[in-house]
Amino acid sequence: MALKNQLNQVNHVNGYTNGTVGHRNTTKWDVRSSQTANNTFNPIRALVDEMDIRPNPEKKVITLSLGDPTVFGNFQPAEQVLQSVVDAIKNGKNNGYSPSFGHATARDAVAAYVSVQGPEVNGGDVYLASGCSDAINMAISVLADPEDNILIPRPGFSLYETLSLSQGIHVKHYDCLPEKSWEVDLEHLESLIDRKTKAIVVVNPSNPCGSNFNAEHIRAILEVAENNKVPILADEIYADLVFHDKSFHSFSSLSSSVPILSCGGIGKKFLVPGWRMGWVVVHDRNEIFGSEIRTGLVKLSQRILGPCTLIQAALPGILSTPEACHQETIAKLEKNADLLYEKLRIIPGLKPIKPEAAMYMMVGFDRNHLPEFKDEVAFTERLMCEQSVFCLPSKCFKYSNYFRIVLTVPEDQTEEACKRLEEFCLKHYKP
Amino acid sequence: MALKNQLNQVNHVNGYTNGTVGHRNTTKWDVRSSQTANNTFNPIRALVDEMDIRPNPEKKVITLSLGDPTVFGNFQPAEQVLQSVVDAIKNGKNNGYSPSFGHATARDAVAAYVSVQGPEVNGGDVYLASGCSDAINMAISVLADPEDNILIPRPGFSLYETLSLSQGIHVKHYDCLPEKSWEVDLEHLESLIDRKTKAIVVVNPSNPCGSNFNAEHIRAILEVAENNKVPILADEIYADLVFHDKSFHSFSSLSSSVPILSCGGIGKKFLVPGWRMGWVVVHDRNEIFGSEIRTGLVKLSQRILGPCTLIQAALPGILSTPEACHQETIAKLEKNADLLYEKLRIIPGLKPIKPEAAMYMMVGFDRNHLPEFKDEVAFTERLMCEQSVFCLPSKCFKYSNYFRIVLTVPEDQTEEACKRLEEFCLKHYKP
Ligand SMILES: Cc1ncc(COP(=O)(O)O)c(C=O)c1O
Ligand SMILES: Cc1ncc(COP(=O)(O)O)c(C=O)c1O
Repeated sequence: MALKNQLNQVNHVNGYTNGTVGHRNTTKWDVRSSQTANNTFNPIRALVDEMDIRPNPEKKVITLSLGDPTVFGNFQPAEQVLQSVVDAIKNGKNNGYSPSFGHATARDAVAAYVSVQGPEVNGGDVYLASGCSDAINMAISVLADPEDNILIPRPGFSLYETLSLSQGIHVKHYDCLPEKSWEVDLEHLESLIDRKTKAIVVVNPSNPCGSNFNAEHIRAILEVAENNKVPILADEIYADLVFHDKSFHSFSSLSSSVPILSCGGIGKKFLVPGWRMGWVVVHDRNEIFGSEIRTGLVKLSQRILGPCTLIQAALPGILSTPEACHQETIAKLEKNADLLYEKLRIIPGLKPIKPEAAMYMMVGFDRNHLPEFKDEVAFTERLMCEQSVFCLPSKCFKYSNYFRIVLTVPEDQTEEACKRLEEFCLKHYKP
Repeated sequence: MALKNQLNQVNHVNGYTNGTVGHRNTTKWDVRSSQTANNTFNPIRALVDEMDIRPNPEKKVITLSLGDPTVFGNFQPAEQVLQSVVDAIKNGKNNGYSPSFGHATARDAVAAYVSVQGPEVNGGDVYLASGCSDAINMAISVLADPEDNILIPRPGFSLYETLSLSQGIHVKHYDCLPEKSWEVDLEHLESLIDRKTKAIVVVNPSNPCGSNFNAEHIRAILEVAENNKVPILADEIYADLVFHDKSFHSFSSLSSSVPILSCGGIGKKFLVPGWRMGWVVVHDRNEIFGSEIRTGLVKLSQRILGPCTLIQAALPGILSTPEACHQETIAKLEKNADLLYEKLRIIPGLKPIKPEAAMYMMVGFDRNHLPEFKDEVAFTERLMCEQSVFCLPSKCFKYSNYFRIVLTVPEDQTEEACKRLEEFCLKHYKP
C-alpha cells in the first residue's frame, strides 16, 4: 500500500498522463456530487426557494399551492381504503418481497380497474411502481436514452423535466392553448418531432390546467403520433376525476394502432399520495412495443424492487371502493372550481380558465392592466406579501402570465382567498 | 401536418442527412427499448433463467436460495412492528406526501437508531428511500457518473452491478478471501483504484458470505480509503445480525476522516423486506462531502418522492422493537448456521466457510474430488436434478466453486437438505 501511495504522489507531482484511468490525487480529498445529481432539477423547488415569499403578518396565510389533497383534512380516504391495508397487515402474509414489478393479484386488480376505461388488459400488462412518479421514470427510461428527446406539454407538470434531465434525455415543450381549454397546439406538437423523439407525453386530465380532452382531440393527437410513429406516454393519474358534465377518455380507449404506456396510481383519486403506489400499463394491440419494452420494464423494476407489499395486498380492496366516494370527492372539487371561477372571472385583470377535471385551475392576469408586475413571479410574490395568499406562478410550469390555484382548499378559505385577490387586483388595476 | 408528413417521406427516400436531429421514418414503427433498460442487468435472474433446474420428481424440493427470510413462515415480524403500521393508519394523518427524503420524525428515529452503533448523527443526516435498494441507488448516483467506477466485493451482492451498469457506471471487483473468513484482499482492493474511482463499496455483514469484519480489518479498509481519498459506501443492512460471540462495528464508528455513506433499512432485521423502507446516512465529520453531496441526495430523492408514509410514520415504533425479538432471530439463524456447518464440513468434497452474521453461508466444493462438475453451475444443476435441493451457484456473485445456502430455512428442511447433500457428494466423490 505504501508503495502505491508513493507512486501516486510522484504521479501527482508530474501531472496526470491519462484522462480516464491512472492515478489520483491522494493528498487531498476531492469529492463532488455527480452530474446526474446536479442535473436532477426540480423547477418548482428551485423557483419557490428563490422567491421572496414573506406573508403579511396581519393576515393568516392561505396556501393555494399544494398539490396534496390531504393537507387540509377536508379530503379523506374512504374507510374501505384504510381497512384494506389493516387487513393486509393482519393477514400476516404480505411482508416478504414481491416480484419487482408487483404481485400477480395486485397486477390483476389494476388490470381489471383500468379495463373499465379502455381496452381490456390483463395483469401481465401491468407493472407496479413506487408511485406514479416511479412509473413515469420507468416509462421514460425504457423508451429514451441520453440524447434522445421526449415531447412534454407547456404549461406542464415539472416531474417530466426532472426525470429526463437527470438521465441526459432532452425535453421539448409543446404548447397547450388556454383559449381552447388547454387543448394541444397540434401543429406545434408535430413540428417538434425529430428522429430522436422517443415519446409524446400527454397529461390528461392535466396538472396544472385542470383540463380534460374530448374524444375528438385525443384522436387528433393520436393521429400525430401515428403519422410520425411516435409512441405515447399517457399520464392518466387524474383519470375519472372529471366534473359532472364531462367524460374521461383514456388514450388507449381511442387508439387503434399507436402503442401507449399509460401511467397511473392511487395517490390522487383515492386520496393517499403518501402511499406511493403507481403503475405503468402497456397498451400494444399491434405488438409494436413487442416483448422488448416489456422486458425493459421488468429489468428497470429490478433496480428498486417495487412498491410496498402491504399496499399491493390492499389494492384489490382499494380499487373497489364504492363509486359514491369518488363522486363525493369530485363534487367537492367541482363546487370549489365553480366558486373560484365565478368569483375570479369578475375581478378586473384576472382571467381564470374554467377547469373541467383534476384538482387545479390556471388563472391568467392581464399585464396591460396590472402593469406593476413584470411577470407572474412578481405578481404572486406581491400577493403573498400584501394578502398572505400563496399560489404557484406559471413559471413553475414553463409558462407565463398565469398562476395555479388548487381546488382542494376548504370552501371558507377559498372564499376568503377570492376576497383577498379581489382587493389585491382592485388596488393594482390600471384601467 | 400533411406537409410535414410528405417532407418526411421524401427525406426517408433520400436517406437521412442528419444524425441527431432531422426527420424520422414515418412509414414504419420502430420502437426499441433503451440502452438504459438493456443494460439493467440482474445477473442472478439472468443466470437462474438460463439454468437447467428440473427437480427430481420423487423428492420434494428444498429451496435454499431465497434471500427473503419470510418465505417459510418461521421468521415473523414482531407484533410491535405490525401494530406500529396499524396505528399509523388509524391516526389518519399519514396519507399525504412527505418531503421526498422523508418526514422529520422518521428521519430522527433512524438517526437515534443508527447512533447506537456509531458516531451520533441527527435526522438531517438521514435520507429515507424506497428500500435499501433505492438507498444504494441514490448513494451510487450521487457519487458517480457514467464512465466513473466503483469498487465492489467479489463474491458480492449483485445489485451494485445492476444499478451501476444501468447508469453507465463501471464496476471493478475486489477479492474477498475465504481462507480469511472473507476478509478483503487489501492489496487487490488498492490496486484497482484509479482516478475515476468514486467509491469503495463494502457490504458488512455480507450477503452472500455471512462474514462480519472485525474492528482491525475495518480500520485497514478505512486506511486504504484514506490513503487514496476514496469515500466509502457501506451497505450495513445486516447491521446487528451477528452471532453471539461476534460484534458488529459500523464503518462510521471506526472512521476518523473517511467520509461514508451508510445504507441500511428495516427489511432484514425487522423481517419485512416487502415494506420497502431504507435509508442513506451521511457520515462526514470533516465536511469532505460538504453540502454538495447532501443537496445531491435531496435532488435525487425528488425523482420518486420517498418511501410509503405509513411505514415512515411507523418507523419510531418499529425501530424500538425490544432487543429480545432480534436476539430470537439471531439465535435461530445461528442455530441453523451451526447445524449446517457441522454437517457439511464432514461431507467429502465440501468446504463450508463458517458464517458469523447475516443470513447466508458459502460452501466450497472441491473440483479435484468432484470432477464430474465442470463448475458450480453444473454442480447446483445436478444437485437439483438428483436431490431436489436448490442453492445459488457462486457465479451469481461473480465467484467460482462455491454455492450459497440461506440460513432462514426451517430446521427440519435444513437437516434434510444436509442429508441429501451428503448422499449427493458420496455418490460423486472421487478419492
Ligand atoms: C400529472 C401528475 N403525474 C404524476 C404525479 C405523481 O404522482 P405520484 O405522487 O403517485 O408519484 C403527479 C403528482 O402531482 C401529477 O400531478
Ligand atoms: C447486501 C444487501 N444490500 C441491500 C439489499 C436490498 O435491500 P432492500 O430489500 O431493502 O432493498 C439486500 C437484499 O438482499 C442485500 O442483501
